[in-house]
Amino acid sequence: MVSRVVFGRGSFNQLDDILSLKRKGRNAPFIFYVDDVFKGNHWLTSRITLSYKDKIIYVPTKEEPSTGQIDQLVEDIILEYSELPSGIIGIGGGTVLDIAKAVSLMLTNKGESKDYQGWDLIKHAAIYHVGIPTISGTGAEVSRTTILTGPVRKLGINSDYTPFDQVILDPELTKDVPKDQWFYTGMDCFVHCVESLTGTYLNAFSESYGEKAFELCKEIFLGDSLSVEEAQDKLMMASWHGGMSIAYSQVGVAHAMSYGLGYLLGVKHGIGNCIVFDHLEAFYPEGVAIFKEMKAKHNIEIPSGICADLDQSQFDIMIDVALSLEPLWENAIGKNWKTIITRQKLLELYKKM
Amino acid sequence: MVSRVVFGRGSFNQLDDILSLKRKGRNAPFIFYVDDVFKGNHWLTSRITLSYKDKIIYVPTKEEPSTGQIDQLVEDIILEYSELPSGIIGIGGGTVLDIAKAVSLMLTNKGESKDYQGWDLIKHAAIYHVGIPTISGTGAEVSRTTILTGPVRKLGINSDYTPFDQVILDPELTKDVPKDQWFYTGMDCFVHCVESLTGTYLNAFSESYGEKAFELCKEIFLGDSLSVEEAQDKLMMASWHGGMSIAYSQVGVAHAMSYGLGYLLGVKHGIGNCIVFDHLEAFYPEGVAIFKEMKAKHNIEIPSGICADLDQSQFDIMIDVALSLEPLWENAIGKNWKTIITRQKLLELYKKM
Repeated sequence: MVSRVVFGRGSFNQLDDILSLKRKGRNAPFIFYVDDVFKGNHWLTSRITLSYKDKIIYVPTKEEPSTGQIDQLVEDIILEYSELPSGIIGIGGGTVLDIAKAVSLMLTNKGESKDYQGWDLIKHAAIYHVGIPTISGTGAEVSRTTILTGPVRKLGINSDYTPFDQVILDPELTKDVPKDQWFYTGMDCFVHCVESLTGTYLNAFSESYGEKAFELCKEIFLGDSLSVEEAQDKLMMASWHGGMSIAYSQVGVAHAMSYGLGYLLGVKHGIGNCIVFDHLEAFYPEGVAIFKEMKAKHNIEIPSGICADLDQSQFDIMIDVALSLEPLWENAIGKNWKTIITRQKLLELYKKM
Repeated sequence: MVSRVVFGRGSFNQLDDILSLKRKGRNAPFIFYVDDVFKGNHWLTSRITLSYKDKIIYVPTKEEPSTGQIDQLVEDIILEYSELPSGIIGIGGGTVLDIAKAVSLMLTNKGESKDYQGWDLIKHAAIYHVGIPTISGTGAEVSRTTILTGPVRKLGINSDYTPFDQVILDPELTKDVPKDQWFYTGMDCFVHCVESLTGTYLNAFSESYGEKAFELCKEIFLGDSLSVEEAQDKLMMASWHGGMSIAYSQVGVAHAMSYGLGYLLGVKHGIGNCIVFDHLEAFYPEGVAIFKEMKAKHNIEIPSGICADLDQSQFDIMIDVALSLEPLWENAIGKNWKTIITRQKLLELYKKM
């Protein structure tokens, strides 16, 4: 779990104080990975103080992180500096947070990041790493995974060393998120809750977190009583609780199929979840009904026809990726999932998208 | 925050595996502080494996921990062993968990524990420490404090180093808690929620945790739909969330006055909270009404007349202790609390108890 958290509007201003206690020396820099949407955004970047050899690296987030990208970022650091960094700080959405987590792990674990995709393969503690979300919903700020697209699969590096040592939850940082993006990423959280709460892996720990996040999502996306700031504050907490819920259970059908879309077509995770979830009435009747209500209330158009021009071999790739995520299916359907989930069923679903 | 948590019925069986990774050598023992209610309880104690110089120390819990007791326990360890322990494990209620936290801190911080009562006075990281609650409600398993009765005050050692490195939440361990104790300690959690949710320090972080714990308490103590096991599971989560809620806000009137009772009369915290809270309609009208409903539903008699024979100097001691807890009053009443809370008002309240 995350060891330390500060919460509150303006808490981003505490970053300097927090990091100053962790500096290991002038040759051990802090590396800041920042979503490139903030390039030239003085309001945010002026509050990042660079000392000695510290460096901001702006990260394009049109594509989700890949194992090759992580290995390159790690190599860049090793070639440029004589010592390991004092810390890795991710400031952005799920992509940037996952990059920060993966780089901090791969600086202390030998080999290529693709070799660590899976569960509990990491052997050594990561470099000190800090996560600062600037959009709410992914749960990446609290999770024990970092999802990477590798040569053969899209799968996380899941380990006890993956979670951030420090998280700063400053809802003000989400104020300029475009509406569509706000919805798609918020729905990532909503889908986490539905998949966790209806899953066979559910326990009282996950349930209590999932229920709270579910309630917050309904208040935020269906209610009318919250101020803009209250909605920002609460969505940041919903993301947190939703992430905690799946950390102790598992996600399900929407995530498995969304990973297929992501792997083949590069569809980003939030919107991919929405595209898939919209067609999952058979698996999550109540959740999908609420989702459709939220979508209508906020006039959100979910892209359609993205699979229209695919051929059978491409569908097969997506189906292979989705089916390889066995724990997700087992959570969603039960131990006998293989008798229920057929390639034909997934093909029919993908064809609708 | 707590770094690692496992949850689930029977998860206590994982203790050996968890500790084996943390052993520093044959001269660095694990010290297990265990509530002496478990002395001779083979069901629990047979699952604690002692190797090398490991030791179980049974702790009487009639009284709450004092600074003198902590200093003695620390001295005992230093005199008996040539190396610092590999870890300190607390297995019990709030008293035992607080002892484990305090001892682990004082093994690495010089001087007497009374010198660290307050906020952020601890300078060095504690010895690795593990908390395993056997009763639910105190929030001690998740909090960043360890409440000690010192020579001049009852006050916690509040620090970033106080929280456990590892918590095991096994609801099965609470199965033999007597009914009265179950209620008093559960109400500690309920009071945490009320004090946090109505306080001026409230923020979206604390609110989301406090609301969840509040809902769980109502389900457990007013509902009729839960099985015995479900109620145990959920109360353990309520305690956790209630503790998280106050960790990021503060407690209030009931805790301030209960500390007075505890300091002068040795009234234990859970029951002390109930005695006080029962008279706090003026401060927490909704919360106290629900409390009275819960009390009636479970046929719980709250002790009365405990202050009947006290003289003015004794009341003054309790009032001094209560009033010294300034952050609690500021949270409950606001920055102008001193104009509202008079010694006379507290005297009248204490006289009712």
